[in-house]
Amino acid sequence: MSTMKAAVLRKPFELVLDEVPVPQITEPTDVLLKVEMTAICGTDLHPYEGRIEIEDDVILGHEFLGTVVEAGSAVGQFSPGDRAVASCVVNCGHCYWCRRNDPGRCIGSRIFGMGIALGGLEGGQCEYVVVPNADLSMRKLPEGGKGTDEDLLFVGDIMTTGYEAVRRVFTPGDTVAVVGAGPVGLCSAMSAVALGASQVVVVDKVAARLKEAEAIGAVPVNADETNPSDAVLDLTDWRGADVVIDAVGHESALLSAITLARSGGHLSIPGVYLEESMTLPFGELWLKGITVSGGVANIVNYMDEVTALIGVGKLDPSRMISHRMGLSEVTEAYRLFHDHEATKIVLDPTK
Amino acid sequence: MSTMKAAVLRKPFELVLDEVPVPQITEPTDVLLKVEMTAICGTDLHPYEGRIEIEDDVILGHEFLGTVVEAGSAVGQFSPGDRAVASCVVNCGHCYWCRRNDPGRCIGSRIFGMGIALGGLEGGQCEYVVVPNADLSMRKLPEGGKGTDEDLLFVGDIMTTGYEAVRRVFTPGDTVAVVGAGPVGLCSAMSAVALGASQVVVVDKVAARLKEAEAIGAVPVNADETNPSDAVLDLTDWRGADVVIDAVGHESALLSAITLARSGGHLSIPGVYLEESMTLPFGELWLKGITVSGGVANIVNYMDEVTALIGVGKLDPSRMISHRMGLSEVTEAYRLFHDHEATKIVLDPTK
Amino acid sequence: MSTMKAAVLRKPFELVLDEVPVPQITEPTDVLLKVEMTAICGTDLHPYEGRIEIEDDVILGHEFLGTVVEAGSAVGQFSPGDRAVASCVVNCGHCYWCRRNDPGRCIGSRIFGMGIALGGLEGGQCEYVVVPNADLSMRKLPEGGKGTDEDLLFVGDIMTTGYEAVRRVFTPGDTVAVVGAGPVGLCSAMSAVALGASQVVVVDKVAARLKEAEAIGAVPVNADETNPSDAVLDLTDWRGADVVIDAVGHESALLSAITLARSGGHLSIPGVYLEESMTLPFGELWLKGITVSGGVANIVNYMDEVTALIGVGKLDPSRMISHRMGLSEVTEAYRLFHDHEATKIVLDPTK
Amino acid sequence: MSTMKAAVLRKPFELVLDEVPVPQITEPTDVLLKVEMTAICGTDLHPYEGRIEIEDDVILGHEFLGTVVEAGSAVGQFSPGDRAVASCVVNCGHCYWCRRNDPGRCIGSRIFGMGIALGGLEGGQCEYVVVPNADLSMRKLPEGGKGTDEDLLFVGDIMTTGYEAVRRVFTPGDTVAVVGAGPVGLCSAMSAVALGASQVVVVDKVAARLKEAEAIGAVPVNADETNPSDAVLDLTDWRGADVVIDAVGHESALLSAITLARSGGHLSIPGVYLEESMTLPFGELWLKGITVSGGVANIVNYMDEVTALIGVGKLDPSRMISHRMGLSEVTEAYRLFHDHEATKIVLDPTK
Repeated sequence: MSTMKAAVLRKPFELVLDEVPVPQITEPTDVLLKVEMTAICGTDLHPYEGRIEIEDDVILGHEFLGTVVEAGSAVGQFSPGDRAVASCVVNCGHCYWCRRNDPGRCIGSRIFGMGIALGGLEGGQCEYVVVPNADLSMRKLPEGGKGTDEDLLFVGDIMTTGYEAVRRVFTPGDTVAVVGAGPVGLCSAMSAVALGASQVVVVDKVAARLKEAEAIGAVPVNADETNPSDAVLDLTDWRGADVVIDAVGHESALLSAITLARSGGHLSIPGVYLEESMTLPFGELWLKGITVSGGVANIVNYMDEVTALIGVGKLDPSRMISHRMGLSEVTEAYRLFHDHEATKIVLDPTK
Repeated sequence: MSTMKAAVLRKPFELVLDEVPVPQITEPTDVLLKVEMTAICGTDLHPYEGRIEIEDDVILGHEFLGTVVEAGSAVGQFSPGDRAVASCVVNCGHCYWCRRNDPGRCIGSRIFGMGIALGGLEGGQCEYVVVPNADLSMRKLPEGGKGTDEDLLFVGDIMTTGYEAVRRVFTPGDTVAVVGAGPVGLCSAMSAVALGASQVVVVDKVAARLKEAEAIGAVPVNADETNPSDAVLDLTDWRGADVVIDAVGHESALLSAITLARSGGHLSIPGVYLEESMTLPFGELWLKGITVSGGVANIVNYMDEVTALIGVGKLDPSRMISHRMGLSEVTEAYRLFHDHEATKIVLDPTK
Repeated sequence: MSTMKAAVLRKPFELVLDEVPVPQITEPTDVLLKVEMTAICGTDLHPYEGRIEIEDDVILGHEFLGTVVEAGSAVGQFSPGDRAVASCVVNCGHCYWCRRNDPGRCIGSRIFGMGIALGGLEGGQCEYVVVPNADLSMRKLPEGGKGTDEDLLFVGDIMTTGYEAVRRVFTPGDTVAVVGAGPVGLCSAMSAVALGASQVVVVDKVAARLKEAEAIGAVPVNADETNPSDAVLDLTDWRGADVVIDAVGHESALLSAITLARSGGHLSIPGVYLEESMTLPFGELWLKGITVSGGVANIVNYMDEVTALIGVGKLDPSRMISHRMGLSEVTEAYRLFHDHEATKIVLDPTK
Repeated sequence: MSTMKAAVLRKPFELVLDEVPVPQITEPTDVLLKVEMTAICGTDLHPYEGRIEIEDDVILGHEFLGTVVEAGSAVGQFSPGDRAVASCVVNCGHCYWCRRNDPGRCIGSRIFGMGIALGGLEGGQCEYVVVPNADLSMRKLPEGGKGTDEDLLFVGDIMTTGYEAVRRVFTPGDTVAVVGAGPVGLCSAMSAVALGASQVVVVDKVAARLKEAEAIGAVPVNADETNPSDAVLDLTDWRGADVVIDAVGHESALLSAITLARSGGHLSIPGVYLEESMTLPFGELWLKGITVSGGVANIVNYMDEVTALIGVGKLDPSRMISHRMGLSEVTEAYRLFHDHEATKIVLDPTK
């Protein structure tokens, strides 16, 4: 057990399967997890494509689940043999923000597999991974057939990111418009349906994605064919959507999202914005009294709810999986994902 | 149009179809509604059976919908021809409680068809009814096939009563236990499913009601066969239910409900309690930190949400209708309902 | 009683005291109020200075209190002789937004003395004014010496605007930074103190205003002498303010406000923005997870709270009054206010 | 440093100053704290008077602050030399309740100095105490003169217990009635004032306590002289109090508290109830729609807010201290407290 297979990013675009030492727990709050399933996330493409600079030779991956092999002496919740899923973000648990129940803003946040700048944690696209602050960062998988591994895998990242974006601003009966039918957008749409939206509208330009949105229970709007704003007004007695989710993260999406929101509505943004400056119709935002919120998700606050809703079949993010591959094929998997030939790829470390 | 047919309670147990004058609007905020559908509610049995004393010759009925015939000069929202459903309770709109958005406590509350002590409004089991404060008390029926009349009929009372009992204390993913599978209990169960409960448990002793609960998506527990507390503990890793709804209103139900709630849970009580005194395990309630809430529902606050959820098929209270009869059969209808031979009876004023 | 004195805006900059007919109530929900005190608001300068175009010969003024002279037949709460203060905004009470308890977004909002485009209501800088939807729009003045008229006058506009901006996002113990020490900014600062802020920082460049902020209990920061961001970081262990109030409404204020907010904080904007487009550091806003909210205030939702807090001396907006003049001096009063020679002017219609 | 002085309860009523071994940290999440100030709490009288049975030879005390001497390897927030105050309750941080941000219900709660049944932690009425889960259980004392030690001492128990009872149900401007002017009642009253109550009424029968209530800013009501319900109705336009705090924990107090609450109000109960059964006017509670909540306080959720409000002088619980004694006088101190000759006693371990 001294070495293991791991997806190592040598440098941008050079992702290889390597044999590396099995990691060891070093803190009493650590858990060593045997990875049984892991996925490639859109965020992994940032270091892969060099858009985020990280040091060489990092193991990627922050979506994974598995079985506890070893638990540090201060871990209260997990014992060897427990199956668990990890949050992609590890919080400190005691800073000003954690104490205010806002862990997404935790000043000591660390993300798996994103290099030293984001906390220096090795990722989970491998056979074994160390999860720090395990009592905070992990949740046991439910027993008794409440959710498949392929659904629960996403509790630690995209499913919960999409869920929180809706949940934090949602009132039952709302009309929810989602801009962007990528994985996070679809997770938001699925969440809105599960929580009791009266209508969910999903805007995109890719027919296949819109078909998936429709299968989830949403009204698909192809922005190449229909003006999204007109479509939403038409469905809401000319009010606009109560909640708009911008799941894209490009200026054009944001501008479109603003036009979809009704006066007094919410614009909730799981899509990542890093632009130094952007020109916005601020007078319109102010006059309409729209509340805008965004930022890294409070994953751990909502993992239990998402797990419960998966358990009863109200959320089933596994439907987004397009490819199931072995970890040994990880180089090819990244190529497919980078080339937009895959929606969501799940990797099996035993293969 | 000078007279109409109406279900008049001469005195307890003497409910007759009578010919009475068509009522007239007297306040500028009144609307005259042509009743197109009306139902008999469990609460109607209180005056019918003499458990609540009211004056003679009152028209009963507080669940009804229809078409606006005439609108007072100060009515802003309704015009003749509009179809609408009324709240069973009419609020003043400006007292301390209404101003705090807590209309269920309105000091000027009036209930249709319950006699002078409750405001002196004639009821809706007839052809025409005057609805005061119409802008506050009524909601337009949605167009475009969003909900049938038989579903929307219940927006003004039992559906929304059951909904609010859950909604005001609910967190998505919760386990909700409902004590009592009568109409309000089933409406609560249905609401919990619609809002994203992970489990809904319904406790009763009548097999037919439990079958209906199961059809709604709940786990039925027959209290004659299984200890409800054991059943709930078994389904919740020995915690108890996050939310318990007491939809009965008898001491034994309350005591049972208390045993079902987890530490830190909510006990929400749509069931009506009028007892001067009751002996409760208060130490247990305190130690478990259970929050207890009850009282007449804030109907108007939730009518829009319930209407929206009916519109997309997430709530379908019409499934509880056991009998569809003509208003001309109202005497027999009350007999059936009083004798527990009917679950829910809907009356057609044209027949 | 057939004519009265009124401050009439003939056209921009031509504000005269005129003799006009006493208005009459026309709707059963109207009240005729004898004005006993009225103030000039910064918003009045918009039509006065021609920045908002309104028709000729409008009576200005939307901050006023007085005694009810006549109440329409559908008014439930007021009788002749009652003393009351009006909200500057009159809501419909039954639109989608009013029903959601968000009257600031009411689709039928009307503002006193702002011309036809904003609802065509005559203003209150005169002897008599008609208040529509009086049960919604007015609040009785408390008896027993709970607040002076000069304090209660501001319940209907600036005091409550400043209060809501804080109240809707505030947690006790928060550090609140207010950008702009004009009347609304000072009202926000006062509110933050009353609600239990641990620190209130007020940023401005005018020494007299900052002195007033200090008297209220705030830490004054002169932006000409100190970098506001440094000052706030210094007071908050380098976190930034939990809540930032932008009470200005200029791009520079907004950019400054953004720098003051901590990660996960709230930027609440009572200052009016009408700009078609503005360039913002949106990536910073997103990364810090700041929630931004603004728009016309929900005045009527908070009038009771503000009245109660004035009643116990926790809010005392009268301290901002710089001039007490007779209505007969209104032409001079507007000149003073326009020329920044007055902070807040109160007019007495009897003089 | 191998032995220390400690207040040891040999058996009921036999509280002695003893020389015992200095405790050692055993878990990586522990902190060893040198106690610099500690208080005797009403709850300490339960084991002292034998009302709660605990094993022999327990060190009592759960209100204390001091300086960190040693921190376990997994402690992130504290280093030797840091000054801190501990919560009286230590939570696990990862159970169902902790994960829902409801630590008062934590299934693994432990209380200092209350014996094995409540977790087996030695208390703080001594020179050194081990604080488990220190990152969760302790808060650093603020620097820069924000609050005295004598105020901050109470952040870990009574001040925050009284604060939460108000805070969790409070709306600014509310009238708050407090039944019982003991330490927790006074802390609730003080909190209501700090958070913006319009009126605080305190009911008791002891003149000295009522005088203290008045000094805090409350309206004192002597239940021996005035009917509390009449007094509250008189102050609230015959509505009753928005929030009632039962800070006593006896049946008579609860019955009185119920009469004080307005329809739709909150009855929040920090007073401890352990009665197996109690007879309540449940029909009145239901009809008035009063929400009842109680249970052990969520101390850690509110320690930061309370600390912040102490820091600006809005809360000053030190005013309740009647005696300042040395730890060497602890036997006499318990006698005084037991005999009601002291309100609140603070002990100095160095004397």
